Amino acid sequence: MTVALQDRAAIAGMGETRYAKHLDDTEAALAARVVLDACEDAGVSPGEIDGMVSYSVESVLDTALSNLVGSNDLSFFANVGYGGGGGPGCVGLMAMAIAAGRCEVGVVWRSRKRGSGGRPWAQGGSAPLVAVAAEFTRPAGILRPVDEVAMLARRYLHTYGITREQLANVALAFRRHANANPRATMHERPLSLADYLAARWISEPLCLFDACLESDGAAAVVMVSAERARDLRQPPVYVHAAAQGMPARMVPQVNYFVDDPLLTPSRVCARQLFAASDIGPADIDVAQIYDAFSPLVLWSLEGYGFCGQGEAGSFVENGAIEVGGRLPVNTSGGSLSEAYVHGFNLITEGVRQMRGTSTSQVDGAETCLVTGSETVPTSAILLRR
Amino acid sequence: MTVALQDRAAIAGMGETRYAKHLDDTEAALAARVVLDACEDAGVSPGEIDGMVSYSVESVLDTALSNLVGSNDLSFFANVGYGGGGGPGCVGLMAMAIAAGRCEVGVVWRSRKRGSGGRPWAQGGSAPLVAVAAEFTRPAGILRPVDEVAMLARRYLHTYGITREQLANVALAFRRHANANPRATMHERPLSLADYLAARWISEPLCLFDACLESDGAAAVVMVSAERARDLRQPPVYVHAAAQGMPARMVPQVNYFVDDPLLTPSRVCARQLFAASDIGPADIDVAQIYDAFSPLVLWSLEGYGFCGQGEAGSFVENGAIEVGGRLPVNTSGGSLSEAYVHGFNLITEGVRQMRGTSTSQVDGAETCLVTGSETVPTSAILLRR
Repeated sequence: MTVALQDRAAIAGMGETRYAKHLDDTEAALAARVVLDACEDAGVSPGEIDGMVSYSVESVLDTALSNLVGSNDLSFFANVGYGGGGGPGCVGLMAMAIAAGRCEVGVVWRSRKRGSGGRPWAQGGSAPLVAVAAEFTRPAGILRPVDEVAMLARRYLHTYGITREQLANVALAFRRHANANPRATMHERPLSLADYLAARWISEPLCLFDACLESDGAAAVVMVSAERARDLRQPPVYVHAAAQGMPARMVPQVNYFVDDPLLTPSRVCARQLFAASDIGPADIDVAQIYDAFSPLVLWSLEGYGFCGQGEAGSFVENGAIEVGGRLPVNTSGGSLSEAYVHGFNLITEGVRQMRGTSTSQVDGAETCLVTGSETVPTSAILLRR
Repeated sequence: MTVALQDRAAIAGMGETRYAKHLDDTEAALAARVVLDACEDAGVSPGEIDGMVSYSVESVLDTALSNLVGSNDLSFFANVGYGGGGGPGCVGLMAMAIAAGRCEVGVVWRSRKRGSGGRPWAQGGSAPLVAVAAEFTRPAGILRPVDEVAMLARRYLHTYGITREQLANVALAFRRHANANPRATMHERPLSLADYLAARWISEPLCLFDACLESDGAAAVVMVSAERARDLRQPPVYVHAAAQGMPARMVPQVNYFVDDPLLTPSRVCARQLFAASDIGPADIDVAQIYDAFSPLVLWSLEGYGFCGQGEAGSFVENGAIEVGGRLPVNTSGGSLSEAYVHGFNLITEGVRQMRGTSTSQVDGAETCLVTGSETVPTSAILLRR
């Protein structure tokens, strides 16, 4: 019964703004620019665009973007919810639509002025995303996303005896990748373990370097069928498999009310992803793992099967997640050190790795995992060269 | 290349609350009830649910609904935007996900207390949906959706010489269907042409009976693969084809800024729908057409190819859209006379027609078209017995 979607759609082009604490352009202008850049990169005309998918929280609507870039009539448009959980899910949804013939030239994007704009949690009313749980957690002083994650991080470090020195490997590895990437916000700023350990708490046990940047920026990809992609300007990057995962009865951001809050949504997503894939965790050459906060990376390494539950603290030691290591992760610097674009720059870096053009290129990389957040219903894609 | 999705997924169960101006339950409680009812109707356990799709404006999130109904882990979840344009699109998206093996038991729902709750346009800030255009139209006194549609209706009646007596056939036909449907809000209220012509203007040329009801209520369907559906309690209702349509550079609700504002989005949607279908307009036995306002029905009759541009005024004369006529439309009474649930009760009535259980059953009906709104990016499904 199942329609195999493996490798039926491909990412043919990508576009990114520069990333900064403040960009002058509006989110709409940034979105239009990256979509036009992605079309130029692929060698397709914006007038061919007939599908659009983005995050449910994206402020630039498809109708507006259609107008700004001069698209064709659209025959497919949809959203994936839950912020940073949804980026790979948007690409996976577009891949399915293209494979199913619902559209031919699809764009997926995220544009966000989080660097210079407001903080969502500081604007009075809570987002619907966390409205129910917020009634219980905000009066207890758990106000910001970093506080919500700190609760789980504390429990994780305690339960599995993981040290701050182990956790530090995430921030240090990504910073080294950023130091090699001229586009990264932290390109010129080295980071040492001593710096890390001396940094101020943001929400204990998470320090300044465990939290992502706040960035203005936008990124986009243009997708077509595998056949079409082979005739275009860039080497095709195939969407080998795509999946989503929402554990039953999950509470977004503050999933404290289940038997084991450390069983994060990646477990549900991974089960689906690898069931639909010829590629297993041992075959993955490089990964771009959602890193709004550093502990999420450890949880995803466990959830996607790179190591056992509670073993990620050891896994990341000795340069294992740096280029040259066992599984290079976030080779552009990621959300911690390149920019925070709700995870979309992890997707574009995945494309670069499959093209062989990363500034921290993994030699001979043929497969790349890109994941969404561990604190909300999530998603993942497996890219293949 | 295209993966044929025809008849690969089916609607196996449906649930509806009663419809009223005021229901006591919350939207969440109403949503949970109709999902549980749909599962009971189909003969599947709520614990099997692993996919959820709804409107982007739906207030009951999938995480909340998962908790309330006791679902399984979810492996597919997404939204379709643009309010009443998206209902059939949600069903079409779920059909694609099931055909692609992304989930096995999917629910699609809409829950809304529009009858007793607030009016979206009366709550200060304009919705993002119309934010840009509203800057130009609201200062001109075009405040409510009915005003926005009245502008286009006036032009339509003028351009094609269509009379109010012709337009009245929409409201009169749907009211007769409601008079046969004990669940319809207007079940016990007959409507005559004289009543129609004497009614007060809501926004000229649209009178009271051209505008939909304001209702509290919820409805849901549960969907599975075609194979699975054949083993369940109810006769399968296959999703033969599904499509969406957003004309290039469309402005939602106030699409006044194009060469011909009367070329509504159904034209884009219909092109896709019939390209993916073995069924053409002439083969359709019954239709449920989105009817927040009566002129939308005329535009959809033209857009989906039942008659030519400007010919719908004649098409609907002499009982053509009543049971026994050429194309019975909105056989439950629709949004004008049964209830306004953002079009979702058109989907459930489509299911009833394919099961042979409508209170205005079309004898031997084997195919049913269900459509979304003409004032926003839209969608449609073709159901088959």
